[in-house]
Amino acid sequence: MLGAVLYGPRDVRCEEVPEPKILRPTDAIIRLSASCICGSDLWPFRGLNDIASPLAMGHEYCGIVEEVGSAVRTVRPGQFVVGSFCISDNTCPHCRNGFQSSCQQREFMTGAQAPRARVPLADGTLVATAELPADDLIPSLLAASDVFGTGWYAADAARVQPGSTVVVVGDGAVGLMGVLAAKQMGAGRIIAMSRHKTRQNLALEFGATDIIIERGDAGVARIKELTNGIGADSVLECVGTKEAMMQAIQCARPGAMIGYVGVPHGVELDGQWLFFSQTGMLGGPAPVRRFLPHLMDLVLNRKVEPGKVFDMTLPLADAAEGYRAMDERRAIKTLLRV
Amino acid sequence: MLGAVLYGPRDVRCEEVPEPKILRPTDAIIRLSASCICGSDLWPFRGLNDIASPLAMGHEYCGIVEEVGSAVRTVRPGQFVVGSFCISDNTCPHCRNGFQSSCQQREFMTGAQAPRARVPLADGTLVATAELPADDLIPSLLAASDVFGTGWYAADAARVQPGSTVVVVGDGAVGLMGVLAAKQMGAGRIIAMSRHKTRQNLALEFGATDIIIERGDAGVARIKELTNGIGADSVLECVGTKEAMMQAIQCARPGAMIGYVGVPHGVELDGQWLFFSQTGMLGGPAPVRRFLPHLMDLVLNRKVEPGKVFDMTLPLADAAEGYRAMDERRAIKTLLRV
Repeated sequence: MLGAVLYGPRDVRCEEVPEPKILRPTDAIIRLSASCICGSDLWPFRGLNDIASPLAMGHEYCGIVEEVGSAVRTVRPGQFVVGSFCISDNTCPHCRNGFQSSCQQREFMTGAQAPRARVPLADGTLVATAELPADDLIPSLLAASDVFGTGWYAADAARVQPGSTVVVVGDGAVGLMGVLAAKQMGAGRIIAMSRHKTRQNLALEFGATDIIIERGDAGVARIKELTNGIGADSVLECVGTKEAMMQAIQCARPGAMIGYVGVPHGVELDGQWLFFSQTGMLGGPAPVRRFLPHLMDLVLNRKVEPGKVFDMTLPLADAAEGYRAMDERRAIKTLLRV
Repeated sequence: MLGAVLYGPRDVRCEEVPEPKILRPTDAIIRLSASCICGSDLWPFRGLNDIASPLAMGHEYCGIVEEVGSAVRTVRPGQFVVGSFCISDNTCPHCRNGFQSSCQQREFMTGAQAPRARVPLADGTLVATAELPADDLIPSLLAASDVFGTGWYAADAARVQPGSTVVVVGDGAVGLMGVLAAKQMGAGRIIAMSRHKTRQNLALEFGATDIIIERGDAGVARIKELTNGIGADSVLECVGTKEAMMQAIQCARPGAMIGYVGVPHGVELDGQWLFFSQTGMLGGPAPVRRFLPHLMDLVLNRKVEPGKVFDMTLPLADAAEGYRAMDERRAIKTLLRV
């Protein structure tokens, strides 16, 4: 079968890869309904993460179970499933505490930019629907696997409450999903920081009440102006750079929480500065599995349409173009037909 | 009158200082019932904070109101009051949000190692008792002004819940108060890290269920052992050094909160490491005013006795010896008779 493989900086190839096999009795093999490229795939694509050997790309997935290992109990062939990009047993103390992304058996999904994929710990990782979903729901169900779940976690970690004033730093796919999540949680005001027209429009469609184009000190000043000098109750940091984190901290009111979900690259925090800013922080890889049943319900009941974040669709064979388009910000997020 | 003044590293002198006066209509002048030395006074005493000119020391206080400015409405001469070390108006948006230590008019109290002191923003800062308290309650009421309130905030910021497993890093006065606070909040297990017998005993008296003497990697391993490999639900970081912060983060289970109240000195946090540890953090100067009415009630009703943290009492004239004793860890905390 075809699969996307990263060989080095900006060198992603779609090539023949081995068919996945059941390796452990807790595995499942799924036939993907669609795949996609994640913003976090751009870190190694840009050469910012070292890779030792060619890397089978792709960790967002949904599809039909084809085969399960002998120990799998909760999903069966023929079912439609969505799983988190973090593989988890969903039974260890960290999972039971809602932090499945720090599962004691955690693995990160790989090889999902392909028509079929192996999902380890299938019982703990996959959530099945009662029946096969309509085709038009596939992009939104796929989004629940990572990008929507990650935006949701950012809002959850930032403790968005009904009526909250929320700032979302980053207008990538995750930031836009953060806007959608904050809206669902009842935020009263959602300020999206974006200077790209198509992203601004999507943010507004997802529930943003204000768009600001300023960044850095000017961005902080604008947020303060919009909030009567107070700052935001909750800030979602959805980028991972030092600039974005500084922006987030300075937009937060004292006692506010920042939910940060962009994998930090080059971010050093000065303890004393953080202390006197009195900003709370919680981040990490999103425990999507905690939210997955709820997010799938929202999609299946057509309450939300996170799949709108896919503004480019390509056949898997053209994955490399999908990476380039996202890298150059020509696309927010690329769906791959598999 | 006499007052403690810091001239430079290890040079604190008790000398004649001017009597405090009402400078603004919102001020009050109080006659202190007792004063004390704070762990944070040791930072400038040790030369770790630069001081530009001689510094009037002391920010913990309780006593009798002697005089109030023309705008003061809620306290009157003759009343016994306790105030926070953070001066606040208690009406600005940050105060109303419970973060009085980031009040838009915030000042830090000074000059309270003296018989009398000026308290700015008296209405927002001071809490009066219904009647004059018994003499034996003075040390505990004094503790509410900062050290008890700061330990309480550490537990609050770390979101200690009934049944929680709590680790307290630091066996200074604040750490011991953190133990007491966690106990009051219903923590199921309180692990105090201490290798000093008198502090261990006080921790046990305040509610610690376990004492561990190991530090660094051995300390982390011991916490993991005590918690079935899981880590703590809440960690109170009550020191402010890099070692203490690293200890705190590594003892925390994924999703746990660290309440950090030791002013960080030389603490740099790597964003990516913090991200993957999935540890939440909230710190800052404690908004003692938020907790003060409750803490004073606990003391006045003799439910708690935080004043036990004072294991040395000296006349104000001997303040320098009090600093030395705390610096050399011969005393946990020194009460000054004024």
